[in-house]
Amino acid sequence: MTPTSLCPPASAATRHDGRAPDELRPVRITRGYTVHAEGSVLIEFGRTRVLCTASIEERVPPHRKGSGGGWVTAEYGMLPRATHTRSEREAARGKQSGRTQEIQRLIGRALRAVFDLDALGERTLTLDCDVLQADGGTRTAAITGAWVAAHDAVQTLLAEGKLAASPIHAPVAAVSVGIVDGRPVLDLDYVEDAACATDMNVVMTGAGHFVEVQGTAEGAPFTRAELDALLGLAERGIAQLIALQRAALAGAQVG
Amino acid sequence: MTPTSLCPPASAATRHDGRAPDELRPVRITRGYTVHAEGSVLIEFGRTRVLCTASIEERVPPHRKGSGGGWVTAEYGMLPRATHTRSEREAARGKQSGRTQEIQRLIGRALRAVFDLDALGERTLTLDCDVLQADGGTRTAAITGAWVAAHDAVQTLLAEGKLAASPIHAPVAAVSVGIVDGRPVLDLDYVEDAACATDMNVVMTGAGHFVEVQGTAEGAPFTRAELDALLGLAERGIAQLIALQRAALAGAQVG
Amino acid sequence: MTPTSLCPPASAATRHDGRAPDELRPVRITRGYTVHAEGSVLIEFGRTRVLCTASIEERVPPHRKGSGGGWVTAEYGMLPRATHTRSEREAARGKQSGRTQEIQRLIGRALRAVFDLDALGERTLTLDCDVLQADGGTRTAAITGAWVAAHDAVQTLLAEGKLAASPIHAPVAAVSVGIVDGRPVLDLDYVEDAACATDMNVVMTGAGHFVEVQGTAEGAPFTRAELDALLGLAERGIAQLIALQRAALAGAQVG
Amino acid sequence: MTPTSLCPPASAATRHDGRAPDELRPVRITRGYTVHAEGSVLIEFGRTRVLCTASIEERVPPHRKGSGGGWVTAEYGMLPRATHTRSEREAARGKQSGRTQEIQRLIGRALRAVFDLDALGERTLTLDCDVLQADGGTRTAAITGAWVAAHDAVQTLLAEGKLAASPIHAPVAAVSVGIVDGRPVLDLDYVEDAACATDMNVVMTGAGHFVEVQGTAEGAPFTRAELDALLGLAERGIAQLIALQRAALAGAQVG
Amino acid sequence: MTPTSLCPPASAATRHDGRAPDELRPVRITRGYTVHAEGSVLIEFGRTRVLCTASIEERVPPHRKGSGGGWVTAEYGMLPRATHTRSEREAARGKQSGRTQEIQRLIGRALRAVFDLDALGERTLTLDCDVLQADGGTRTAAITGAWVAAHDAVQTLLAEGKLAASPIHAPVAAVSVGIVDGRPVLDLDYVEDAACATDMNVVMTGAGHFVEVQGTAEGAPFTRAELDALLGLAERGIAQLIALQRAALAGAQVG
Amino acid sequence: MTPTSLCPPASAATRHDGRAPDELRPVRITRGYTVHAEGSVLIEFGRTRVLCTASIEERVPPHRKGSGGGWVTAEYGMLPRATHTRSEREAARGKQSGRTQEIQRLIGRALRAVFDLDALGERTLTLDCDVLQADGGTRTAAITGAWVAAHDAVQTLLAEGKLAASPIHAPVAAVSVGIVDGRPVLDLDYVEDAACATDMNVVMTGAGHFVEVQGTAEGAPFTRAELDALLGLAERGIAQLIALQRAALAGAQVG
Repeated sequence: MTPTSLCPPASAATRHDGRAPDELRPVRITRGYTVHAEGSVLIEFGRTRVLCTASIEERVPPHRKGSGGGWVTAEYGMLPRATHTRSEREAARGKQSGRTQEIQRLIGRALRAVFDLDALGERTLTLDCDVLQADGGTRTAAITGAWVAAHDAVQTLLAEGKLAASPIHAPVAAVSVGIVDGRPVLDLDYVEDAACATDMNVVMTGAGHFVEVQGTAEGAPFTRAELDALLGLAERGIAQLIALQRAALAGAQVG
Repeated sequence: MTPTSLCPPASAATRHDGRAPDELRPVRITRGYTVHAEGSVLIEFGRTRVLCTASIEERVPPHRKGSGGGWVTAEYGMLPRATHTRSEREAARGKQSGRTQEIQRLIGRALRAVFDLDALGERTLTLDCDVLQADGGTRTAAITGAWVAAHDAVQTLLAEGKLAASPIHAPVAAVSVGIVDGRPVLDLDYVEDAACATDMNVVMTGAGHFVEVQGTAEGAPFTRAELDALLGLAERGIAQLIALQRAALAGAQVG
Repeated sequence: MTPTSLCPPASAATRHDGRAPDELRPVRITRGYTVHAEGSVLIEFGRTRVLCTASIEERVPPHRKGSGGGWVTAEYGMLPRATHTRSEREAARGKQSGRTQEIQRLIGRALRAVFDLDALGERTLTLDCDVLQADGGTRTAAITGAWVAAHDAVQTLLAEGKLAASPIHAPVAAVSVGIVDGRPVLDLDYVEDAACATDMNVVMTGAGHFVEVQGTAEGAPFTRAELDALLGLAERGIAQLIALQRAALAGAQVG
Repeated sequence: MTPTSLCPPASAATRHDGRAPDELRPVRITRGYTVHAEGSVLIEFGRTRVLCTASIEERVPPHRKGSGGGWVTAEYGMLPRATHTRSEREAARGKQSGRTQEIQRLIGRALRAVFDLDALGERTLTLDCDVLQADGGTRTAAITGAWVAAHDAVQTLLAEGKLAASPIHAPVAAVSVGIVDGRPVLDLDYVEDAACATDMNVVMTGAGHFVEVQGTAEGAPFTRAELDALLGLAERGIAQLIALQRAALAGAQVG
Repeated sequence: MTPTSLCPPASAATRHDGRAPDELRPVRITRGYTVHAEGSVLIEFGRTRVLCTASIEERVPPHRKGSGGGWVTAEYGMLPRATHTRSEREAARGKQSGRTQEIQRLIGRALRAVFDLDALGERTLTLDCDVLQADGGTRTAAITGAWVAAHDAVQTLLAEGKLAASPIHAPVAAVSVGIVDGRPVLDLDYVEDAACATDMNVVMTGAGHFVEVQGTAEGAPFTRAELDALLGLAERGIAQLIALQRAALAGAQVG
Repeated sequence: MTPTSLCPPASAATRHDGRAPDELRPVRITRGYTVHAEGSVLIEFGRTRVLCTASIEERVPPHRKGSGGGWVTAEYGMLPRATHTRSEREAARGKQSGRTQEIQRLIGRALRAVFDLDALGERTLTLDCDVLQADGGTRTAAITGAWVAAHDAVQTLLAEGKLAASPIHAPVAAVSVGIVDGRPVLDLDYVEDAACATDMNVVMTGAGHFVEVQGTAEGAPFTRAELDALLGLAERGIAQLIALQRAALAGAQVG
């Protein structure tokens, strides 16, 4: 719980992997990663790899039935050996952990924030985010990749004439920030995440507005000044991620 | 899902219940509400009523076994008819909802943030927060009340000579803030919570430091300026709640 | 399992709390205890406190669908720290214990015995009985309080013009009796319940007829004469409880 | 739910199957019905057939560990097509119904009432009562047969020298009684059970003392006089059942 | 796991119970074993006893709804003390084991292979196979008995005029074969099954065609020659079982 | 259920994808696909892609405790959108399907057949086989890939000096065969699998011996001649797969 030895010494000019404090890990977005889903994206934040698929189904949950509008939801999972030590398979254990549910609810809210559900028509878009390899930041990678997968699924609906205009009104992406070794840093990997104090996940739109801010200090509580510094880092990181999403969409779809 | 008619008109000088934007609902803290628990507090934020009990057990979860230190955890529940319409009993349904798990994980983190777990000894303090009546803000009331219940349970340990000093190093309290009808307001009740846009739960210590910041915009994303205004409101509201906790502790324990 | 030291000495003229053998604990019935439910009653048998809410829903379970008639059912729960030592939360454990199910089936049968289900219309009345504090006799307090809550919910239906006449044709109440220290006594508290031999729960109507008789001797089997004595005690106790229910209904509803 | 046409006319001199009001169905007890269990009994009350096996395991549940004494418990099940229409398999549904749990708790208490658990040694005797064919009275047949199976299992322990004396201090048996067509009758079959009013299950020892009395009136509540008449019928019926148990034990064990 | 001492010596001319390598255990088929089911058969392969009931319900699972055709399915269970040591009750444990599910899927496929589902009409035939006593080969006995029960249930439909012709186009039966002590043998009992190497279950029709072949070598892998020998044994054994099914149907139905 | 239109016409000289009847799909084996697992292999049979990871844990299940020997087991899962239409996530549904359990038991048995469990030491090797994309033959690809992953995990143990010699005594691989359009073919893809009659999965060792033979005819039963033809095809296909495993091991490990 307190692996302080993992923390780089305070005098370190750079982070344990050589990044600057405000530097993202290398991000890679591969569209068309699998063939069956309407949208299928492998997103990599360094060694973190999440497969995000978007599935369209022509039905809605009970609370949307007869509304004429649709629903967007997400599910999250981690392969048992995505992590350093094998974690129990949730399907075998018979239930999803609180952590899993918290993350998939977060992803769902993030995507719904940029969707006009009424304009989607009475159908459901499900974003399955499955972590193939974990190295910190799986939920923020999931949100960032799920948006691209959602975009591709909507393109399918447009191409098939099922929709006349996209119900997505903005891009959305997410990143983690935190205070490591007394210094605010962007996009924590597992070593940074496990070793040190405050951790915050931020979700923003292409317009630079906030969708979610979730900061937690199980270690030392953080000050307003630290919070402001973290929000600034996140704003800059998310702007870069949204640029990367746009670049991925500009490329031809692979698959 | 879009009960806009519940929103007071934009010209309203006050909130639908007459409160000023930065005004808490009447808060009442009753210690010794039930007899068996080491700490038992009924906390009321207006019509929201949460029974918080603190139970001490002389055992710890596996990851703390043999450490010499303890653990603090929380569970949250809502009576089926705490709400406007009856909700299904989670015990009958056979599992806790994602919302329930998210809230009890939040309460647990908030309390652990002000506890020196090593100084607690190899025992577990469980905070059960059960909502008898819900009118918005149940999780923030739960955190605020649970801290008082935890304090009383620790007093029991001190009185019995099981501890020489309190392992609690600061008070902790929580409040919700949100943007209702375009205006930042403090301590949302159900009508405000359901009707309008952004909602944020903030947990802070007596020193004015942040433990948790959880802001969500399922409606319109919020700007950095709005976020700053909300944080300011929360800081002032929590300062008042911590004063109320102190006043409750200064009174004789009822029960 | 054999806390014989808890048993008062055989020569004791009175019970451990000073009551006569045929004396109820102080009973208090508070109507309108919470605001959302159609009926909401806090009932206290001494230190035992049960919150009984009655909820009306305009739907019926499958076996009553299309019958034109309604259904009355009950659910029972105990807050984790209602008891001396914390008991596991059933929602967390993922299932209700056999004891819980047995009690809620009993409460449901007791209430249905005094209801004309066909006259209720195609709706369901659910009685949620949640134990806030336990000190013996929770199921009998629950039945006695649930009847008052059911009455108040029916008044709501009458006031709204949804029913022309009450479908309740009699009051119903319940009490425990048992053989403690060789002597039949009325309304056992926890100490008496845990320490000694035979235990019987009796449910009766205002006309003095039996709805349920559940006597159990895990210790020494009991004779017909003892059974007769216990039934006599129960008859007298229930008559008093029904008088208390009537008095509670005669008072103005508090809330 | 109201199969009144199943009720024999009020003027009927005898019951629908020709029995006198105080007449048991033909009872048959077959010992050694299966080969692996320490005790294995098929008991038949008319067309009701229950297989009762008694299993000895050299371990006890946690609350008896280290006590030197043992435990006696029961489980109850019904084959899906033991009944007129197929009922869902509880193993497939993933949980035991409230009814199943209530019955197996009753059987366990009934058997423990005649066992000296301390004299059993630190071992568990499990009575599995599985209904092969149901025609009313399965729980009373189960108790009556389980006692014979328990006896045979104890004989095994005595024969192996693991016990010096039997820990069973009395026989125990059970029967149902009820008010059918306004008349108290003994040992109800399915038609009588389903069609008519009050139903009572009574468990007694060989000494004529009561272990359990469970009377229920979902229909019309019953009077004290009716209760007395039912208890009288049960006393006589159980005396006959205990004589039949003794006769079965007097015969050579078949297998 | 390696009870090699249970293996008869290699020089043994006969099997541990005196059978020839290609000899079935005594097989007994009792029709009309219980009264409620449309088909009810007790089948015995030596000491293995399985109760197979066939239930007709006038509804089909979702994937057959509106098709005009029916469905045939199976469920399998084992009484807790059918085995040498008591096994946990699946209903109590809250789920069916992988083994149980595998077996009931096998039985269902085997029966469907000889049914014209379209000719069954929009109804479901459920085969419940419950093991009363286990001594090896429970799944093959279950298939062989279930076919007779299915036949009897179809006769009921024909007699009631609900079907004009039987939808069963062939008999189906099953047997186990295996390599015990280096020698292929037919119809393994528990001792043979547990002690030794390869085990194969074979399901065939009356025409001598294969429906299922499931051979497993957790011990030493087997050669093509051994496989051929096992298949030959199975062919001869199943021919005998089908003759026994026909003989059972030729007899008057007992019940 | 009978999509016969998917069947290529009987006169077709080749299969729908142009393969010869005895031709495997292109097989690709990528070692070191993820970084954390002791063995991590992506195996592709055409468009079927399964990620097989091998995890070593220094503990064994209860039945192996204290034996000095180890255990090899497998778990199987499919990402929700690995298939044409989204299938429900088993972790969300709260249980694994019968199909999933059957497959993971098969994989486990196949691997144990070539392992000397005693020589593994008191540790567990878990093979997680997760289907990223499904196009028929997922279980046979899983077995074939899992063996390579197991090999790599054992190499880790050898390199760390935890084992002196490999406990794997042979390669093992699997393939499906079936009768499509009246003709035996090797390695069925989804179209062939869904459209036509008999399906068989065969598992064999490098020595050409059988570990598992699982043939099923839900359509028309198959003859001994057809069975022989299928086994011949499988023998040749598995020989090729084992050559491909060897080639993969001969290459440098990528990762």
